[in-house]
Amino acid sequence: MSIRYGVLGTGALGGFYGGLMARRGLDVHFLFHSDYQHVLTHGLRVDSKLGDFHLPSVNAYDRPEAMPKCDVVIIGLKSTQNHLLENLLTPILNANSIVLVLQNGLNVEQAAVQIVGHSRVAGGCCFLCSNKVGPGHIRHLDYGRIVFGAYRGIDGKGIGPSPESLQRILTDLVDSGIEAYLTDDLPTTKWKKLMWNIPFNGLSVLLNASTDAIMNDPDSRLLARRISQEVRQIAMAAGCPIEPSYVDWVIDHTDDMVPYDSSMRLDFLNGRPIEVEAIYGNALLEAQRCGFTAPIVQTMYQQLKFMAAHRKPNLQP
Amino acid sequence: MSIRYGVLGTGALGGFYGGLMARRGLDVHFLFHSDYQHVLTHGLRVDSKLGDFHLPSVNAYDRPEAMPKCDVVIIGLKSTQNHLLENLLTPILNANSIVLVLQNGLNVEQAAVQIVGHSRVAGGCCFLCSNKVGPGHIRHLDYGRIVFGAYRGIDGKGIGPSPESLQRILTDLVDSGIEAYLTDDLPTTKWKKLMWNIPFNGLSVLLNASTDAIMNDPDSRLLARRISQEVRQIAMAAGCPIEPSYVDWVIDHTDDMVPYDSSMRLDFLNGRPIEVEAIYGNALLEAQRCGFTAPIVQTMYQQLKFMAAHRKPNLQP
Repeated sequence: MSIRYGVLGTGALGGFYGGLMARRGLDVHFLFHSDYQHVLTHGLRVDSKLGDFHLPSVNAYDRPEAMPKCDVVIIGLKSTQNHLLENLLTPILNANSIVLVLQNGLNVEQAAVQIVGHSRVAGGCCFLCSNKVGPGHIRHLDYGRIVFGAYRGIDGKGIGPSPESLQRILTDLVDSGIEAYLTDDLPTTKWKKLMWNIPFNGLSVLLNASTDAIMNDPDSRLLARRISQEVRQIAMAAGCPIEPSYVDWVIDHTDDMVPYDSSMRLDFLNGRPIEVEAIYGNALLEAQRCGFTAPIVQTMYQQLKFMAAHRKPNLQP
Repeated sequence: MSIRYGVLGTGALGGFYGGLMARRGLDVHFLFHSDYQHVLTHGLRVDSKLGDFHLPSVNAYDRPEAMPKCDVVIIGLKSTQNHLLENLLTPILNANSIVLVLQNGLNVEQAAVQIVGHSRVAGGCCFLCSNKVGPGHIRHLDYGRIVFGAYRGIDGKGIGPSPESLQRILTDLVDSGIEAYLTDDLPTTKWKKLMWNIPFNGLSVLLNASTDAIMNDPDSRLLARRISQEVRQIAMAAGCPIEPSYVDWVIDHTDDMVPYDSSMRLDFLNGRPIEVEAIYGNALLEAQRCGFTAPIVQTMYQQLKFMAAHRKPNLQP
């Protein structure tokens, strides 16, 4: 019996992965917000490195009450919208629904845990350069890997979904052409992702710069490396073993990346909330829990909170 | 016999202090750059908390070769112009001229030492809120204190000018209505000033904010305090004893300050070079010399260097 998927937040991430799954013929139901009418008429369009495609007709909804119950709900919303999650998620849950949270940041799965309990939440990291460029129109620029696994709570003592249920999701993702992997150590995967997000998301806002500008300037390049190193040190203090050379990997990998505006920079420039708490605040909470001081991450956190509170309307890319 | 003063750089600082000294009737000679013609015709105007005044005729020059030899040369140029110092200074030196360097930052006196040797250079800190608002027109907003003393080199082993010669300068400054003090410990005075400059100059550029905006936001306020604390730690490592409560003094003092755009912010917004090396680079060199790691100052240094190199023309106040 096939899994019925729901996608909450059909943007750069949910539209790309959900679109690939729908193209494969999986049973996928998409919640749209402002793009709903456009998608009803014109379908969903994905321009992708993997090949452009257009789905003229998708299962599109403008409110969760109209959706069927789903076995797996993929959360593609930004964590800044997690206050909406209960109202969006509750109508589409069955007794065993698994919630797969694909959000940047640490312990962002807690919002779902509070709704469905700790045995039904998975988390994942997406290594994806993708933007929504118009209504129902996604542009996938680079990468696309998902690494996901059971979310076991802040203390790591929760249960999480069964390996079998996660394996079935993995099979569907891979069959859809997505580079997906299961991890039994979600925290380490999350920290590895943060070793990119914390330097590059924040610097892209604070320096008003795309990744290539950050990489091409000797000072910001060195700073990005120092930040990534500090994030690794927090991870180590939190019991997540990451080899020192992973810092080099992050830097090399960013060199190879196409020039890219991080999601945080796009959010900032477009006047949307930025994920400061999920990415910086929660990492600092974890550092504090482990008695580790993270002066650079703390500095960025305070700078970004100021920037978010005093957004200058004339700060253009 | 009275001292003949030369003022190199007649802007917010040189125009204010030199103006007060000329008003007092001291023998002061001013080098102007773009304001020369205006000052010849209209004189020098100072709007000041201490009382507005206008000097219809001052000893104004457009090149140092036209100036008389001076006993004391006050350097009011920004440290970013120190590459010009030799050409500006040499023509007005006599065999015993003392150079009083009133520039932000650490070891900025080295440029003068290389010209006149280590026995004739004094350095000073100005606690001054003053801006040049038009040609030959200075607006003094707040404060005005000068603390100055012998500069004894990076290693502290230089000789510096005699106490008597510094005392004569002090007398002239005080007679002119300037709140001036001598210090026998210039490095500690400099570090105390850096405990303000390093947080507030840098944050005003990085956050595109005036001092009151920085103080009124809880995150940037806390960040400013953390930065000031780190600067104190470098100073302590460098052998300059500063009581921990001086951090509170810096913060309280900034609360009491009129809303103010730091000189670095004005320079940045007006497309002029910013004093990153004098204030941040030289403080970090000193930290390194003492084996002290200063992660926040280092972060600001790298961010500011990026900002200076990638100045956005549309970043408006």
